[in-house]
Amino acid sequence: MRLVPDFIVQFFTKESTLYKELQTMLGFTPSNLALYELALCHRSNSNNSTENNERLEFLGDAILGAIIGEHLFVKYPTRPEGYLTDMRSKIVNRKTLNQIALKIGLKELMKFNEQDYYLRDSLIFGNALEALIGAIYIDKGYAKTRTFVRKRIMIPFVDIELLESLEVNTKNKLIGWASKQGKKIDFILIEEKLERGRKKFTIGVKLEEEIIATSTAYNKKEASKIAADEAIKRLEIAP
Amino acid sequence: MRLVPDFIVQFFTKESTLYKELQTMLGFTPSNLALYELALCHRSNSNNSTENNERLEFLGDAILGAIIGEHLFVKYPTRPEGYLTDMRSKIVNRKTLNQIALKIGLKELMKFNEQDYYLRDSLIFGNALEALIGAIYIDKGYAKTRTFVRKRIMIPFVDIELLESLEVNTKNKLIGWASKQGKKIDFILIEEKLERGRKKFTIGVKLEEEIIATSTAYNKKEASKIAADEAIKRLEIAP
Repeated sequence: MRLVPDFIVQFFTKESTLYKELQTMLGFTPSNLALYELALCHRSNSNNSTENNERLEFLGDAILGAIIGEHLFVKYPTRPEGYLTDMRSKIVNRKTLNQIALKIGLKELMKFNEQDYYLRDSLIFGNALEALIGAIYIDKGYAKTRTFVRKRIMIPFVDIELLESLEVNTKNKLIGWASKQGKKIDFILIEEKLERGRKKFTIGVKLEEEIIATSTAYNKKEASKIAADEAIKRLEIAP
Repeated sequence: MRLVPDFIVQFFTKESTLYKELQTMLGFTPSNLALYELALCHRSNSNNSTENNERLEFLGDAILGAIIGEHLFVKYPTRPEGYLTDMRSKIVNRKTLNQIALKIGLKELMKFNEQDYYLRDSLIFGNALEALIGAIYIDKGYAKTRTFVRKRIMIPFVDIELLESLEVNTKNKLIGWASKQGKKIDFILIEEKLERGRKKFTIGVKLEEEIIATSTAYNKKEASKIAADEAIKRLEIAP
């Protein structure tokens, strides 16, 4: 079945430098080149609404979510679901993916309207990385895609231990800041209710007498953390 | 590596009727029984915060998203990303999954606090179905999980053509309703802006002189559809 629109392979002919760069980036020899070319094609490059990477981005986003989900499930056998969800969203957030895409040189392989100044600083490169993952999946299957994600993305660019330590520290950072300012800060339980058979907790950050941030989650620690993140943003405390 | 907490297999001993029911439901012989038992264990059954199916639900949700994503990507080779996203959320929404879980008899295999009247009508069975998918993935790998999802969930219980036709009809239904009522209804473009290099459209549903619903999406058709859904809800038009 044809999964790619009639699409002419223009850049990745087997003799081109770009093809060799792609091969180096992937760490294997791609079979269906049109898939990769499509993955690297931003909609600003084409007037045809299907000749761009958005469908592959949809697919790659789902495959990446599954691969990272499994990675975290195995890595943290005793952590609750909320922790896994939170860690995954830190790894696959658009900003992180965009940075990784820039680091592996995806921008140089992409086709987009380079006249559009806005695009040059946008997050389209991370989206293209997701599309590339979708292309690898269709071209090579799940196992190979997982190997690519682990070897080429996770191991070199995702410092899980760092993400973990950042997490622990938001609450402490906020407390430290308040102490320096001579201000009183408290984490208070605002509400506790049952939702679909699970307890949900709403935690508020109280600075002096004012509640400056709240968050709701299935456990108090998680809710406190997100509320602390919110408060840090709102108070504009530097990272 | 141990992926399941120390967990005693209580129900699915190889001679039990429950085990045979599980085997029939799965369509294959499970290897690691503790995984399946954990998948079917709601938190109301246990006081220990890790002896329940929530971690497996996290994993299964991600795997299911990838499998359905691929299914739609292949089935609709010319549809834009917005359409695929929308169709997937119709299939994997909690209510649909819960209905499927009840139909395949998952409730009878589950361990939860049956005294809790609230749980009996809740969506915990769909969550357990996701957890079961996570268990299959760990026990048997991606390919077998995909086969399970297709043969045991998609083909018997998900009528994609019906979901599709429902989609087309919301806008028409609204127009038909207005015509019967002798009222004037219009879909108007309220805003068009660039976001991360993509155009985003806000469409409003205007009934006589009042805008009764709005929605924003990457294409007008999608935005119109969601706005029509909203309007139908708000006007309490029967399905």
